[in-house]
Amino acid sequence: MAADTRHFAEELEELKQRLLAMGGLAEERVRTALRGLVARDRALLLEVIGGDQAVNALQVEIDDRCFKLLALHQPMAVDLRFIVSVVKINSDLERVGDLAVNIAEAADRYLAHPPVEARIDLTRMGAVSQRMLREALDAFVQADTALAHEVLKQDDVLDALKDQTFRTLLATMLADPRTIEPAINLILIARHLERIGDHATNVAEDVIFIVNAMDVRHHAADASAG
Amino acid sequence: MAADTRHFAEELEELKQRLLAMGGLAEERVRTALRGLVARDRALLLEVIGGDQAVNALQVEIDDRCFKLLALHQPMAVDLRFIVSVVKINSDLERVGDLAVNIAEAADRYLAHPPVEARIDLTRMGAVSQRMLREALDAFVQADTALAHEVLKQDDVLDALKDQTFRTLLATMLADPRTIEPAINLILIARHLERIGDHATNVAEDVIFIVNAMDVRHHAADASAG
Repeated sequence: MAADTRHFAEELEELKQRLLAMGGLAEERVRTALRGLVARDRALLLEVIGGDQAVNALQVEIDDRCFKLLALHQPMAVDLRFIVSVVKINSDLERVGDLAVNIAEAADRYLAHPPVEARIDLTRMGAVSQRMLREALDAFVQADTALAHEVLKQDDVLDALKDQTFRTLLATMLADPRTIEPAINLILIARHLERIGDHATNVAEDVIFIVNAMDVRHHAADASAG
Repeated sequence: MAADTRHFAEELEELKQRLLAMGGLAEERVRTALRGLVARDRALLLEVIGGDQAVNALQVEIDDRCFKLLALHQPMAVDLRFIVSVVKINSDLERVGDLAVNIAEAADRYLAHPPVEARIDLTRMGAVSQRMLREALDAFVQADTALAHEVLKQDDVLDALKDQTFRTLLATMLADPRTIEPAINLILIARHLERIGDHATNVAEDVIFIVNAMDVRHHAADASAG
């Protein structure tokens, strides 16, 4: 039984590491897509558009680990919520990988036109959304609600950046209709980056939910003990 | 034990019904948002924008039912996959509810301008995406992979409608820059409807995954028996 418990703890730890790896992979694909946009490098974009096998394979592997852990160890309360949350977060991360493809596709359409001159900063939006995602995952594996609340706050920053990007590009299009087609693709990229922030927000909310459920149970245990 | 099994079967059945109710609610909010757009009825849009409590409450209730079923009954293989899939699908449906809000917000911004004259059909896109969602949920509760494959096929139709909408609106904006601002909101609505189709696709893929896993297991059992 002690060996079984240790084994279970090890498998949970491995599961965390695989989930972080999945997050890192999804994040890297977003970064590559944005690098392709900024450097006007189609090869990078095509690499992202054609290369989501690794993310998809890792998603299947993680789901599979979760099902096996649930089936073999029949974990209780806290561990149960943790593992089911991994399934949910895993599907959030897979969609971040899909968003990287959407960004690369919009960037590829954008590159078919002369550059749009506008004071927008999609790289900054990308940095904020990726930081949110990384911190949300860290908050999850460390059960750190303070960090999860930080992530929720950053979502307002990201929203404001998206609105500002939208207004700037709208003014650009109105001033010069030749920019309409490329600028729409930049608006779509800003939306996709905002959605990455939404996925990070989902993860952060899961963290708060799980840890609070633990707290509630702990308090109940204290009360019945006292 | 027989009573316990019957009880478990009843609870699974109830879970299915609640998930279908969740789907119906999310779908209705999308329909209301589109009706508000077409009828230029701001009251309907504000109703959608301010009214996602019911969907959120139902999401929490369904998640809770899943955790209780997992914790109390420690179900095996097929039931385990089914319940964990409900958690995933539940979060897909909650996002469809969020998309209804996004559609209503874009429609509200659109209504601040004179109508855009363009041969597009967002109502048809809405009908296709909602049908996909409904059929995907039906496929799930009935474990019907043929219906799930139908849903995947319809996603191509929805994508084609979205591309056509995009091209038509782009031409409209290029012809008359005064339409840029309202038309962008129509493009965003088309994107949101496409994403509802993506969520339906996720559900359909889950169905195929679950039923195939059952099949694989059945074949393995046959082989070892023979």
